[in-house]
Amino acid sequence: MNPLRIIGIDPGYGRVGVGLIEVEGNRYSWLFHRLIETPREASFPERLALIYSEIRAICETHEPDEAAIERLFFVKNVTTAMKVSEARGVIELALYQHRVSIFEYTPFEIKQSVTGNGHAEKGQVQRTLGLLLNLKGTLHQDDASDALAAAFCHANSRKVAKGISAYLNPSTPSRPGGPL
Amino acid sequence: MNPLRIIGIDPGYGRVGVGLIEVEGNRYSWLFHRLIETPREASFPERLALIYSEIRAICETHEPDEAAIERLFFVKNVTTAMKVSEARGVIELALYQHRVSIFEYTPFEIKQSVTGNGHAEKGQVQRTLGLLLNLKGTLHQDDASDALAAAFCHANSRKVAKGISAYLNPSTPSRPGGPL
Repeated sequence: MNPLRIIGIDPGYGRVGVGLIEVEGNRYSWLFHRLIETPREASFPERLALIYSEIRAICETHEPDEAAIERLFFVKNVTTAMKVSEARGVIELALYQHRVSIFEYTPFEIKQSVTGNGHAEKGQVQRTLGLLLNLKGTLHQDDASDALAAAFCHANSRKVAKGISAYLNPSTPSRPGGPL
Repeated sequence: MNPLRIIGIDPGYGRVGVGLIEVEGNRYSWLFHRLIETPREASFPERLALIYSEIRAICETHEPDEAAIERLFFVKNVTTAMKVSEARGVIELALYQHRVSIFEYTPFEIKQSVTGNGHAEKGQVQRTLGLLLNLKGTLHQDDASDALAAAFCHANSRKVAKGISAYLNPSTPSRPGGPL
């Protein structure tokens, strides 16, 4: 079986975290991560266009198969949530145009998948993730750690889905949880 | 001076209203309106991609100069508001890529501009708009009347801005209210 490339995305309009991992059987390896930042002085549609073209460029270079996006769950500020959602829209469009299937996870699911504790603190998630992906040095918020964590969470949830599917119905091919 | 084409948009993910008018001095004329509808059974990213390509196609055919979008103001359901915002994101992206400047108006501003009353009922907005744009027959919700009303509101607000600018500073060219 070919290795599977998963792109994790932590959406925003000022900063978008992007992290890519590769999964081959039980082995997960880090491929790439970066923060896309858009200038404050740009107009909002211009910021959306920047995010869209950066995501397209990353898809062209790294050719991900599946995507995991953090779902906005608790909304503190509706105006901010709507702006983040606009950015999410262009991110999903870019992924869809590259035929990448999109999956969503809540912050709780992501933290639980990485540390075993859905209420884990950010620092703990970053340290555990660094160990799990065999990263040299420490992961910081600036290293798009939330995006890498989302990708890791999706890899894990695929593995679980595959295990359950193989158990229930040994002859059919496995499928992860339903896409977006 | 060349006539100005304004595209009005009433955003959504299931239905997007689009209306185009042309403005030449004090004369406003109707050009086009339609509803873009996306199938429920399609995945959400697919619906976004449909909206994006329809808006691009309309821009290519009708070449609007400026756009007026209804701003989501009171949010009843945050999940719906976030999905509408995702659709807004791809709409703004398509407009930006066609170099269309984008302006926002609240439902109150739009109703006030068309009828003189920000609390006017939908039916009244539709009837008044039909008269103002010299439309034969009646406008219905299905005729993307909110989108046409947004375009009309922007045309009016440009005219007011132009009048004020000419009064304050007769030598400089006029500008409408700040873009998005």
